[in-house]
Amino acid sequence: MPVPASVTVGTGQYLVTGQLSVTLAGYSEPRLVRARERFMQTLTRETGIPFLPDASANSGSFEVKTAGPSAAIQELGEDESYRLEVTPQAIHLTAPNPLGTMHGLQTVLQLVQITPQGFAIPAVTINDKPRFAWRGLMIDSGRHFIPLPVILRNLDAMEAVKLNVFHWHLSEDQGFRVESKVFPLLQKKGSDGLFYTQEEIKRTIEYARDRGIRVIPEFDMPGHAMAWFVGYPNLASGKGPYEIERHWGVFDPAMDPTRESTYQFLDKFFGEMTALFPDHYFHIGGDECNGKEWDASPRIQAFMKEHKLKDDAALQAYFTGRVQKLVSSRHKIVEGWDEVLQPDTPKDVVIQSWRGRDSLLDAAKRGYRGLLSNGYYIDLNQSAEQHYLVDPIGDIGDKLTAEQKASILGGEATMWAEFTTGEIIDSRIWPRTAAIAERYWSAESVRDVESMYRRMAITGQKLEAYGITNSATSEHMLERMSGDPNPVALRVLASVVQPPKEYARGDMRDYTSQTPLNHLVDAVSPESETGREFGLICERIAAGKASPEDWHRAHSWLELWRDNDAHLQPMLGRSEITQELIPVSASVKQSAEIGLRALDLLQQAQTFPTASAQTADLAFLAEAKKPQAVLLQMVAPGVETLVKAEKLAGGGSQ
Amino acid sequence: MPVPASVTVGTGQYLVTGQLSVTLAGYSEPRLVRARERFMQTLTRETGIPFLPDASANSGSFEVKTAGPSAAIQELGEDESYRLEVTPQAIHLTAPNPLGTMHGLQTVLQLVQITPQGFAIPAVTINDKPRFAWRGLMIDSGRHFIPLPVILRNLDAMEAVKLNVFHWHLSEDQGFRVESKVFPLLQKKGSDGLFYTQEEIKRTIEYARDRGIRVIPEFDMPGHAMAWFVGYPNLASGKGPYEIERHWGVFDPAMDPTRESTYQFLDKFFGEMTALFPDHYFHIGGDECNGKEWDASPRIQAFMKEHKLKDDAALQAYFTGRVQKLVSSRHKIVEGWDEVLQPDTPKDVVIQSWRGRDSLLDAAKRGYRGLLSNGYYIDLNQSAEQHYLVDPIGDIGDKLTAEQKASILGGEATMWAEFTTGEIIDSRIWPRTAAIAERYWSAESVRDVESMYRRMAITGQKLEAYGITNSATSEHMLERMSGDPNPVALRVLASVVQPPKEYARGDMRDYTSQTPLNHLVDAVSPESETGREFGLICERIAAGKASPEDWHRAHSWLELWRDNDAHLQPMLGRSEITQELIPVSASVKQSAEIGLRALDLLQQAQTFPTASAQTADLAFLAEAKKPQAVLLQMVAPGVETLVKAEKLAGGGSQ
Repeated sequence: MPVPASVTVGTGQYLVTGQLSVTLAGYSEPRLVRARERFMQTLTRETGIPFLPDASANSGSFEVKTAGPSAAIQELGEDESYRLEVTPQAIHLTAPNPLGTMHGLQTVLQLVQITPQGFAIPAVTINDKPRFAWRGLMIDSGRHFIPLPVILRNLDAMEAVKLNVFHWHLSEDQGFRVESKVFPLLQKKGSDGLFYTQEEIKRTIEYARDRGIRVIPEFDMPGHAMAWFVGYPNLASGKGPYEIERHWGVFDPAMDPTRESTYQFLDKFFGEMTALFPDHYFHIGGDECNGKEWDASPRIQAFMKEHKLKDDAALQAYFTGRVQKLVSSRHKIVEGWDEVLQPDTPKDVVIQSWRGRDSLLDAAKRGYRGLLSNGYYIDLNQSAEQHYLVDPIGDIGDKLTAEQKASILGGEATMWAEFTTGEIIDSRIWPRTAAIAERYWSAESVRDVESMYRRMAITGQKLEAYGITNSATSEHMLERMSGDPNPVALRVLASVVQPPKEYARGDMRDYTSQTPLNHLVDAVSPESETGREFGLICERIAAGKASPEDWHRAHSWLELWRDNDAHLQPMLGRSEITQELIPVSASVKQSAEIGLRALDLLQQAQTFPTASAQTADLAFLAEAKKPQAVLLQMVAPGVETLVKAEKLAGGGSQ
Repeated sequence: MPVPASVTVGTGQYLVTGQLSVTLAGYSEPRLVRARERFMQTLTRETGIPFLPDASANSGSFEVKTAGPSAAIQELGEDESYRLEVTPQAIHLTAPNPLGTMHGLQTVLQLVQITPQGFAIPAVTINDKPRFAWRGLMIDSGRHFIPLPVILRNLDAMEAVKLNVFHWHLSEDQGFRVESKVFPLLQKKGSDGLFYTQEEIKRTIEYARDRGIRVIPEFDMPGHAMAWFVGYPNLASGKGPYEIERHWGVFDPAMDPTRESTYQFLDKFFGEMTALFPDHYFHIGGDECNGKEWDASPRIQAFMKEHKLKDDAALQAYFTGRVQKLVSSRHKIVEGWDEVLQPDTPKDVVIQSWRGRDSLLDAAKRGYRGLLSNGYYIDLNQSAEQHYLVDPIGDIGDKLTAEQKASILGGEATMWAEFTTGEIIDSRIWPRTAAIAERYWSAESVRDVESMYRRMAITGQKLEAYGITNSATSEHMLERMSGDPNPVALRVLASVVQPPKEYARGDMRDYTSQTPLNHLVDAVSPESETGREFGLICERIAAGKASPEDWHRAHSWLELWRDNDAHLQPMLGRSEITQELIPVSASVKQSAEIGLRALDLLQQAQTFPTASAQTADLAFLAEAKKPQAVLLQMVAPGVETLVKAEKLAGGGSQ
């Protein structure tokens, strides 16, 4: 995962033993030596086999040949192809440059599997290259600060699935996260002490480059910038004073586009930051500026009148135009969210669409390059399937010329951080982002959802060898919230609940940046795998296509969930955090009881004794499907399928 | 854990909220500021509550007052006491020096628990200090190299349970693990590239000092030193050539005690290493030199004759005497294993007893200071109970004067590394070493085994917040060996097996340092908690003292184990690593069947239908208790208790 462009399966397999060593041939550079070292280390974690650092015994069994260097600063659209040949005797990896080599090494790591003969790589010939040149993951370090080690291990995981752009959202109303030496009050007053030093930024960029990943910083402006104003209130359009925002949402404060001092400040700031971040692209945000501070300022209103700027959008366009020139003068290409696209936006600006494919279509038709993020908002707890089936081009392809199509560069998964922290972010991003990475890399025709889920589960397991901590963190949190070193029954409940989707959570409770994210909703993955499997089984049962194994699993799961409540209830009240789960567990129990009843009726091809009993069950399930304790329980949807199937079956036989 | 010297329970509890902040009063130094920072970070991991770095809102709610500094280089026997007062309103911690302060902070972290009101610390007054001044953990980095991050997180865990000596076994036949600048071939030829740089050593010592832990290096000589001879063959008594040893055991090569060049080398070496390691104590090993190289060398034999050294022990005593002088001249006190104790050993040498309490008694009577490691060999997979009940003084106390008693400084848990790697060492050391730490810190009368197991489980959970990875690593390994992202049935088997005890494993297969430690025996903890609990339940049933809950658990566990084999068998053959588990799983199944039968008979107060049926069952169980696939299955012992109980019951009713 992602599926390569071309795969030819051979005969036999290459056995991985402690004798394996990797020879680098052709072009060489320290980055390749480090890539080899990393490969061996990951291979050890993947297999438990120790490899001696200076193993030379069987050298040449794995030959890596790189033709030449890649660009000194990684560029959009560089050749990332590689060719991999595995036979029972040897592995050969060739690539035009280190980017392809690194991708090929990751493919080898993915191919390793345990077999009756030991760890092995199936004989195979792969010719591979990406479909899109821009395959990104955005992490929002603004709303919650994400510690550096967490960022670094996510870069490791990005490398594993061949993502090549790390878009780093570094400033927000809730925090300014980079050390500025020119304007030190940015971090001193705007970060609660939680920011990355310039040394750490440099280290991260090096680390990313070592993994074939570009780092693009985003400094969001003119809105989403409250944290800047704590130290530099004159940048703002209002009177202040400003404080670091602790709540979530869209807020009024915005930079003042009418003062020359704003641009003088930004010019110096860009000078510092464009030097710190070597990538050719520079993200200026531009989203969700509500203009209220502008509307409230007579001075700004006068300026708009004078400059014939008819509304806030026009004023923002004026601002963006000025900012774009400042950034361009530093030899950078500006990237921004949909809102930066205005009638006279310069043609080299790259549009990142959070609003939808329509604005991407619009941009492409007008000659702009763009990338899609709408549909890849991994913070919204949608299913991996939903993200997977969104294509950056898809059905708008027909409406575009070949050239316009080529202007759609790819996409980015976006990890907004209202409801994530360094502790839990891994499980919010992974393994689901592997499915999105496949969308960006593999052919558009690769769309088999069941295959995706199967492979994603294996990828999730592989990512543990890269330090991604999903299951460990979840287990730790369950123990923590219950005070029980072995919370068996809580684990059962955890396996069938998931967070509410989209923006529902923020509406349910009053969350701030200081709210502990230590509840069950934070410990479980965005999509309940057990709930999903149960739902599929119920659909097969309802459709009369279930196997005996399906019937058996549905039955034993429903019994487990029914009986679990009795084990769980006595302990839930002992912890402030688990108290709220009392009704959730009861709801799961009742749903399971209904499910068992429906299953029995279906098995005996009988209908509900009375229609009203069925109606009552459906009414209960409709309620049970609503969020409780900021959680969706995923037993009810499957059971509903069973109860409705019973109705259909009954309808037929009556 | 460890239980404090004096505890007075108060009324109510102190609620931990995001407002908590810690004020340092009295004496201050950077180490205390870092200790506070670490405290806040651990508290966040323990609770999920974010604390702002510059929180000043509710400052003073936790006041820490340190009277004065501790020694510049931490000394044996420094005051480590502290006083902690928790009321619902505030926390007060006072200590004479930072060592006590750090211990007190760890006690606070241990007291935090989840309650119906939230995370809280019960109101309490504690006056605490250790029973023994020397509370150590030895890690053998020689046999398997243990990466630095693993060492560091084990120092974190040591701090958590108030251990204060990290004894670092740094050279072995299988590897020399420290960078020497004076004799660089030591690591260049003797380590496979796996060694700690001097910078890393310094960092580790600083890290340990920050946690109130002394670091004592051990360079084992004259035996266990083959890795030295690869680069410096003239140090050895034989002709060589020497290679890094790949096997485990006691080998013949030994340093040459007869050449002056040996002492010249060691003098320079000690010069470098005593400067690198600031602790006042320096460990020279001295164990298990078999003298065979000496016996085989006419030159050495002639030397012995000339110097009237009647046997190898006398020659080693001569060597130790010379070495001791060299070390003493660097103002260090020598520590060594039992063997260094000879008739004329200088009185300040500290004896670390691996052989037993008798040699400790002998040493104490002769005026030597000593510490106990026999009984604390955590690599031997004995039960935590066994280690816990070994006291450094215990029954030899009666045979000693008060002064002699005081010469027993404490003890050290020893983690020898034949069967451990950086990946799995956490689970070999923790949480069992917490029980040993309690032995060293708490009163001799603290010996309630069930209380120890209960608290040890909670401590194990707490240690996750310190980065200890037991359950995560075990889960990762089960997935890896099975290739299954959710190996449910393998987990069930894993919960009832444990490694064979003492030195049995090495006799079962031909292990070398290159053998992958990636089998089930490596993934499970040294003591099966489920097996232990099941055994206790069976004993209660056999004794007629079981509760209905006991009967229920025994029954449902036995059913689970009986049925598990059918789920597990189809997958075991798919992996080279799990193939060997086929008979183990079958043996668990059969044992469970016997157990269920016995349980039924006991429940109905009936005897076996025929005596021969019972005899056959006992014969099967006797076989089932033997190691298979380098594993003990822990269902059979409990079932045996049931079957024998059935016999007794039968005997009574016939």
